[in-house]
Amino acid sequence: MPERTRVAVIGAGPAGLLLSHLLARHGIESVVLDSRSREQIETTVRAGVLEQGTVEVLDRTGASDRVLTAGQKHEGIEIRFGDEGHRIDFTGTVGRAVWLYPQHEVLKDLVAARLAAGQDLRFQVTARRVEDAGTDRPRVLAEDAEGDPVEIEADVVVGADGSRGVTREAVTGAHGGYFREYPFAWFGVLCEAPPSAEELIYSNSPNGFALISRRSAGVQRMYFQCDPATDTGAYTEERLWEILQSRVPGTTLREGRIFQRDVLRFRSFVAHEMRRGRVVLVGDAAHTVPPTGAKGMNLAVADVVLLTEALRALLLDRDETLFDAFPATARRRIWKAQHFSWWMTNLLHLQPGASDFDRLRQIGELRTVVESDHGRAHLAEAYTGWPLPAVR
Amino acid sequence: MPERTRVAVIGAGPAGLLLSHLLARHGIESVVLDSRSREQIETTVRAGVLEQGTVEVLDRTGASDRVLTAGQKHEGIEIRFGDEGHRIDFTGTVGRAVWLYPQHEVLKDLVAARLAAGQDLRFQVTARRVEDAGTDRPRVLAEDAEGDPVEIEADVVVGADGSRGVTREAVTGAHGGYFREYPFAWFGVLCEAPPSAEELIYSNSPNGFALISRRSAGVQRMYFQCDPATDTGAYTEERLWEILQSRVPGTTLREGRIFQRDVLRFRSFVAHEMRRGRVVLVGDAAHTVPPTGAKGMNLAVADVVLLTEALRALLLDRDETLFDAFPATARRRIWKAQHFSWWMTNLLHLQPGASDFDRLRQIGELRTVVESDHGRAHLAEAYTGWPLPAVR
Repeated sequence: MPERTRVAVIGAGPAGLLLSHLLARHGIESVVLDSRSREQIETTVRAGVLEQGTVEVLDRTGASDRVLTAGQKHEGIEIRFGDEGHRIDFTGTVGRAVWLYPQHEVLKDLVAARLAAGQDLRFQVTARRVEDAGTDRPRVLAEDAEGDPVEIEADVVVGADGSRGVTREAVTGAHGGYFREYPFAWFGVLCEAPPSAEELIYSNSPNGFALISRRSAGVQRMYFQCDPATDTGAYTEERLWEILQSRVPGTTLREGRIFQRDVLRFRSFVAHEMRRGRVVLVGDAAHTVPPTGAKGMNLAVADVVLLTEALRALLLDRDETLFDAFPATARRRIWKAQHFSWWMTNLLHLQPGASDFDRLRQIGELRTVVESDHGRAHLAEAYTGWPLPAVR
Repeated sequence: MPERTRVAVIGAGPAGLLLSHLLARHGIESVVLDSRSREQIETTVRAGVLEQGTVEVLDRTGASDRVLTAGQKHEGIEIRFGDEGHRIDFTGTVGRAVWLYPQHEVLKDLVAARLAAGQDLRFQVTARRVEDAGTDRPRVLAEDAEGDPVEIEADVVVGADGSRGVTREAVTGAHGGYFREYPFAWFGVLCEAPPSAEELIYSNSPNGFALISRRSAGVQRMYFQCDPATDTGAYTEERLWEILQSRVPGTTLREGRIFQRDVLRFRSFVAHEMRRGRVVLVGDAAHTVPPTGAKGMNLAVADVVLLTEALRALLLDRDETLFDAFPATARRRIWKAQHFSWWMTNLLHLQPGASDFDRLRQIGELRTVVESDHGRAHLAEAYTGWPLPAVR
């Protein structure tokens, strides 16, 4: 006999945990499964630039009581090219801001809040497949840490299990999705050093892109554009600092011990379908973006805000309209975010094989944006995030 | 013995004629040569979307007394995609407008004004080469309609002789320029019909781009994206209307006899050098843009406004600063205009070989622009033209 719940959520990332949190506010019961342990989830260091709308959802619904106090509010970024820095003033142009608050901190807050509220949250339970998507009783077939089978029947199954999860296939079948690869990646480092700048620096340099980000007073995050085949061990620590420094002429980077390195591949993906019957995809399970626009987690939150309303109408009011419309509604924001991520990437990176024309055109584009109030506002609006529907 | 003048201008297009007009206002004498006859210049039908700044220069300096009365003021355009039209309100967003006034009408006004003022304006005189660029006495070697040699020595020689003129080589040598070709062209038609719409329609359709423009109450100009190898005779008149109509779903085109057809190739070019010693390039001799952004003539006017100030300082005040800085100053606008032309082209055209991802990203980009006040203003600002220096 399978267990019963109203919404079975696969994946305890930001999308899955936030969804269970928002559903609970409407009295809708859910079960959340994740193949990872709580510790794994809470300690995998991930970046986090949160749009103002994301922060408002987390704060106003009590999903995180730390985001406003522990997060750093950023009211602008610097775009650098040709030895000049140009500030994009978010507050001054669009009256909005972003918060730097790492994704694993969001997860800690959500896990604590869900467990305190008595959420059925199961770590180390691995979903193997989703069945009966076309019926009113879709089922999740999973396995716990001991290898014992777990079967959950629900009104709706939500795949919040990321780009390598099992739910995507249950929804899209062999169709897959719209896909784009990029001819470069980011080499990321975490280092023990004081911040080199007050705000994030996005630098388009003749040597390639670099992003000088920050994590805390004593730990900094920096990235530079590299070939996707680059190995994390390819450079000495000294060489890493040389490369980073060469890409932000005009700023002296404050160096320190580098204690983590990774290479982030750039991919854009949008699943052909986001829903099949009563099985729905949200977040990375439905779409991935390259990191340049910092849209990944924010897009997951936007999906979840929309889906919550749709599930509320479906499960409490027996009104299927929003649920049926969910993929089309979500996709409007998804394709804008895909475009913004693609655009920020192309605006700032050195394209392998770019001609001199392409390179000077890119500088012309940067000038068009930073020298114009409207250009800066257009970038700021997308970076800080288009409006979200209000959460109840 | 060569003739002497202060400024020898090669080419009686908008750039060359306007330059002689503006120089004369400062009492600087010039000679303008063109290999074409006056009739050829005045009757070659060319499009003309004039930025507000261009109109102001023409009107305020008396270069054209008809542009404001015979030209049509357009306070917006329509961007169409996915069956929906979206108006970009120029006046409402940036307080500026454009005027539709064909280039050959501008030329008629300029020729008449220059001849009335006693300008030394020589038609059917073909420049063969420019010599002594590196000296204070550059010379134009030319040939009149009878084949007799003409030699003009000047303080400065200005090449306003277009993309196939002889001056470019005298300045850039074998270096050429920054160059980009596009995998499509525009098939243009002129037809006897009433206007199909009040404002220009830029349509991104699944069948490819179309531009519904207008010329006068009884003559219309329309374009559609085609393969660059397309022959002007490739289609029957009936088929041309079918193609055009299929690309503006939602609007019923008002048809009429098509009396002119042409295929416009798309090229972007910027000369590596715009000046060598006392020889300078302006307008198409220095740069060409694809037609999507309607920047060609406007960029020529911007060059000429800058160059006039530089020549005034050089020839009247013996101050070389602005003249030396002219290429760098002009290039700032040129690369922004190159970017805008490239961007409008990529935003609106179907790219051969585009993936489904590319196509949906493009729709996401169009939405990002038209659904945002800042996006619409950013487009309107570039379309109506960045500010020009005041003309004295």
